[in-house]
Order: sequence, then C-alpha cells, then structure tokens
Amino acid sequence: MTENKMVISVDAMGGDNSPRVVIEGLALAAKEHPDIRFIVFGDTAKVNPIFQQFPILEKVCELRHSPEMVHNEDKPSSVIRNRNTSMFMAIDAVRKGEAQAVVSAGNTGALMAISKLTLKTITKIHRPAIVSIMPHRFGKYVMLDLGANTECDAINLVEFAFMGNIVARNSLDIKRPRVALLNIGSEEMKGKEEIKQAAQMIKNSKLDMDFIGYIEPHDISNGVADVIVADGFTGNIALKSIEGTAKQLTRMIKDCIKSSILAKIGVLFMIPAMMKLKKTMDPRQYNGAMFVGLNGLSVKSHGGADAYSFSKAVGNAANLVRNNFVSTIRDEIEKVDLDELQAVLYDVY
Amino acid sequence: MTENKMVISVDAMGGDNSPRVVIEGLALAAKEHPDIRFIVFGDTAKVNPIFQQFPILEKVCELRHSPEMVHNEDKPSSVIRNRNTSMFMAIDAVRKGEAQAVVSAGNTGALMAISKLTLKTITKIHRPAIVSIMPHRFGKYVMLDLGANTECDAINLVEFAFMGNIVARNSLDIKRPRVALLNIGSEEMKGKEEIKQAAQMIKNSKLDMDFIGYIEPHDISNGVADVIVADGFTGNIALKSIEGTAKQLTRMIKDCIKSSILAKIGVLFMIPAMMKLKKTMDPRQYNGAMFVGLNGLSVKSHGGADAYSFSKAVGNAANLVRNNFVSTIRDEIEKVDLDELQAVLYDVY
Repeated sequence: MTENKMVISVDAMGGDNSPRVVIEGLALAAKEHPDIRFIVFGDTAKVNPIFQQFPILEKVCELRHSPEMVHNEDKPSSVIRNRNTSMFMAIDAVRKGEAQAVVSAGNTGALMAISKLTLKTITKIHRPAIVSIMPHRFGKYVMLDLGANTECDAINLVEFAFMGNIVARNSLDIKRPRVALLNIGSEEMKGKEEIKQAAQMIKNSKLDMDFIGYIEPHDISNGVADVIVADGFTGNIALKSIEGTAKQLTRMIKDCIKSSILAKIGVLFMIPAMMKLKKTMDPRQYNGAMFVGLNGLSVKSHGGADAYSFSKAVGNAANLVRNNFVSTIRDEIEKVDLDELQAVLYDVY
Repeated sequence: MTENKMVISVDAMGGDNSPRVVIEGLALAAKEHPDIRFIVFGDTAKVNPIFQQFPILEKVCELRHSPEMVHNEDKPSSVIRNRNTSMFMAIDAVRKGEAQAVVSAGNTGALMAISKLTLKTITKIHRPAIVSIMPHRFGKYVMLDLGANTECDAINLVEFAFMGNIVARNSLDIKRPRVALLNIGSEEMKGKEEIKQAAQMIKNSKLDMDFIGYIEPHDISNGVADVIVADGFTGNIALKSIEGTAKQLTRMIKDCIKSSILAKIGVLFMIPAMMKLKKTMDPRQYNGAMFVGLNGLSVKSHGGADAYSFSKAVGNAANLVRNNFVSTIRDEIEKVDLDELQAVLYDVY
C-alpha cells in the first residue's frame, strides 16, 4: 500500500450481491480514482477469492476480516451494539481517523444509527442529513434531507441549507450555488411555519449563501436551484415521487415499443440519439446518498447497485473528501452564530 | 332549456384564455354529456359573440351577466367580499340549489375561499380537501389532499380517506377501492405521528373501507392503491414532483429526437404505438381538481387548460354529481362516530 492518499473504508458485505458487486465496484473506482486507498471489511473467506481476480486492487486495498454482518431486516437498535459487523468496523475506521469516509450498500437505518453513534454530529450542527446529487434539465443539483429527520424545525432547515451549499460547491464545482427551500408555493406566505421561519433566518443572517427563496417541486427539473432543502419527510416524498415517475414513464415507453414491430424498427434509428439521454438519466450515475453533518462521511449505496453504480457511490464520497468537506463544515459553522440566527425569529414573530 | 337534468354552473371568465376556451370546452362537454344543463356566468358582451358560434349550447345553457371577475393576483381575503364576480355568482348558484357543481379555471385560492364561505363544510367533516384523478400503470387513482390544508391531524386524514373512498367508487367505478396513506416507509413505525395515528384509527374503526396501510410515492405508479391520502402539503409536493418529472422526461425525449435526423425518421415508425401511450398520459385527460367536503362540488380547471381539457374538468364534476356524491358523503358520515374514532387514539397512545 502506498501512503499519503485519501482513504475510504468499505463495507464489503452490504447490498444484495455482496461481496462480489462491492469488489468489482472498487476495481472500477480504483481505476477512475488512483488517489484513493481502501480498507475493506468483510468475511475474508468470501472476499478473498473475488479480490484476487482484480490485480488493480492489490496495491490500493487493505483487507480486514470482520466475523459478522448487518442484515437487511436488522433493527438499528440491535446493530449499534454489535462491534463485529463489517458495517460497524468500516464506520469505526473513520472514527479512528484511519479513513475519511465509509461506503456501504447495506441497511440504511443501521448505517445511519451506527454512523451517528460512532462518528457523532459536528459541534454546533444539531442533526445530520442525507444528501444526494440528482440530474435536472441542464446539469445537476443536490437535495437534502432525504429521510434522516422526519420532523425538522427552522434551525435544522437552515443547517441543511448551510451544509448543502458546501456539498454543491465541492461536488458540483459551483462557486456560488443557488440555495432554495422546497415549498408548495413561491409566495412568502405559503407553506409550513418552519419553512417560513427558515427563510427569514437565512435572509437576516450573515450566512455567505445565494439564497433564492422557495422552489416548487415541478421547477426542480428546470435547474433554477443548485441546492434544494427540505425536512426529511418532504425530501423523501419528493425523491421517491421523482424516481417513481421516471421509472414508470421509462417502463411505459418500453412496453409501448415492445407492442409494435414498426416501433421496434423505429427505435433502431433512434439508438444513437438516445444513448446520450440514457447516459444523462442513468440512475446508476447518481448512486450514493451521503450522510452529512457527522465527523466523517458515510455514504450509502443502493442495495441493488451493480459494480458501476457502486463505483459512483465511491466517487461521490471521494469528491467530498478531496475537498476536505468535513473540516470545511467545521470551520464555516464556527463563524456562524446560531443563537443570533434564532434571535432573528423573535424579531419577526 | 329542458328540465330534470343535472345542472352545472360555470365561471366563464376564469383562466388564461377566457371566455373563449371555456365556451368551446362547454360545447365539447355538451356533446359528450347530453344530460347536463349549464348556467354560465360572465361578461355577456364578451361571452355572447362566442356563445353564438356553438348552436349546441343554445338548448343546454343559460347565460347570466356578471359585472366583475376575479383576477389571478386577487387575494382570497378580498374576493370573498365581492358578490358581483362571475366566480362568486357561479358558486352562489350551487348554494342556492340551482346547480349541483361549479367549474372554474380561475384563481385557486379564491375558488377555495369563496366555496368554503358560501357552500360551507358538510356537518361532521372538519376540512374540505382537493382531490384529483391521476393515471398509474394499469389505470387510475384518486389522490387527496392536494393543497387545501397545509397542516393536518389524524382526524383530517381519516376524513380524507373516507371521502376519497367515495370519490373512487363514483369516479373510477371501483366497488371496493384500496385506500392507502402516503408515507416514507411501509413499516408500521415509519413516518409522522399523525399518519400513524390515522392508520390506527382507520384499522380500529367500523369504517367500511379496504384500508391497505402505507404507500410510498414510488409505488403509486404500480397501481397498488386506488385512493392515496396525504395532508395538503405532502400531497401537493408529491403531485408537483410527479407532474414535473413527467414534463421533464417528455421534454428531454423531444429534445433528443430533435437533435438527430435518424431519430426523427425513427419516430415516424413509432407514431402508431406512441399514440395510445400519449392518450393515456395526456395531462389534459386528468384536468379538474375537485374540492370535496362542502355542501356542493367546486371543480378547479387548470388556468392554462384548452377546450378539450376544460371539457374533462366538466366531466369530472358530472361523474360525481351523477352519483349524488355530496349526499352520499352526508349519509355515510352520519353513520360514523368520529368521537368514537378519536377515542381509539386514547387507547393506543
């Protein structure tokens, strides 16, 4: 193993087709990101034979045995007590400072629970959030929280905006991301109390942020904002509505093409033009939900991810680590006076 | 005018291209629904010349002059005081019993405010809701509330389930609709408190309803439920996410086809197969958001609706009126003991 590289720890046992897909994904990631070293946790009896099929991994991976694993049906309350699972050990490597990020395709609730317990929330941040990168018409945007916090107050939303802003700067390479609160109308009086309060707080604060107000879900795809902020319930509803509709439409178009020979011929002509679209919209591109606000980065890959998709989750983690995401949050939140922010509310209400 | 027909009152002045689109839409609706009579409110100087171009309307329409109209930028608080607008007069015709439903393409907030004030909520129903019919993979479903109530408690959600069930029976012609609560997970412990409480209340009640538990947004399109129940904020977020994504994908596919001559040729082959899909997915089919829970039915057409689309909003109103929707709700809610329902909560929590 070479030194002085970014280190990412990996739970080899998470996801539907582990450890094969995870190891194959790491091989792809190693090729694309030669600056990453990996510490891989798993059942070595199962991992080793696959590992040896990918010579590229030998130089950049360290394999460590973990006797147990987290299963999909495991409750968060039980997994946090078991320090012998590949997931726990992979997260713990970040706590110990051996790695800067952890990637797992395992049980989401477990990953969040162990990450919170082990890594702890950054001082002055009240709640971690789940953030993803998604495609709009002209590029990409980040959205958070996607489900870590069912109920949020205004302060939580302001902190999500603050963290989302840094994610967009780091991952989308946008100097001054446009930040918006997800709401059901664009007028100031619309929506829930905590959203209106958060808008007031951001406007009246000294946060260095291009805050553009409210965004409605149907405007997300027009690319008018780079950071979309919501409580975890609303964000999750929007995310799953977007994903579900995209899947439904794709399926309906496929069914429609299958139903006619003429259509099948027509599709042949369209393949070159469609390839580009397919690449932009490929959900595998956007794999990797990041848990932000903790002292270290946890990244959740889809459980059903293939190797390419898993490598993209690793890439998402790497982008944030490369830009010192966690210490940027720590440094910048230091400059923010949250008590002063909250005082804004007393003036307004 | 012939007698003994269903009567629908119409605001001729609402929407982007009124009164032309409204009158053209009525002509289409009159052809499809010969059992409807219309009372049309508007500026007769503007309405009359268009009206005379459609002889079919003469027998089934009564034109009444209204000196003023509601504008898009008008605040609900001001429009409720002006009884001279076409919107107010059209709604008032329902209050007077001259019509059973009103259709308007005007200002949504104004329509809701005047409808609530004029028609009043049905006894024992706490809040009216906005309901729409939408397409899933194998048919249609109804979803409510789509935005009338930003914050809801468990009782409100139960009442929405109750009303949605009747809408699905009447409009989708389903004997025993499957009713689900929109949530971010399918497990019992997931989601917000009021959703969990509503689920408990419905399960423990004597409501005659096929309640199937929680549904996540990405499962809506699979047609596993006929009635999707949410608070107005969540419903509106889901609706606009679904509509936005459908629009984005359609636009991206169109852009992609335009970008290549080969693709343009290919599309020619696909036209016959695509026509059916286009018809199923045509958003104009699903125009007409219905305000339910009032003593009379208010239907909101999209402001940008064309004539065909407006006629579908009229059709939606007619379907519910034909099945005596309002009196069905009145009769069935009589049999439900809401206090008893609420008592269920005290047992559980």
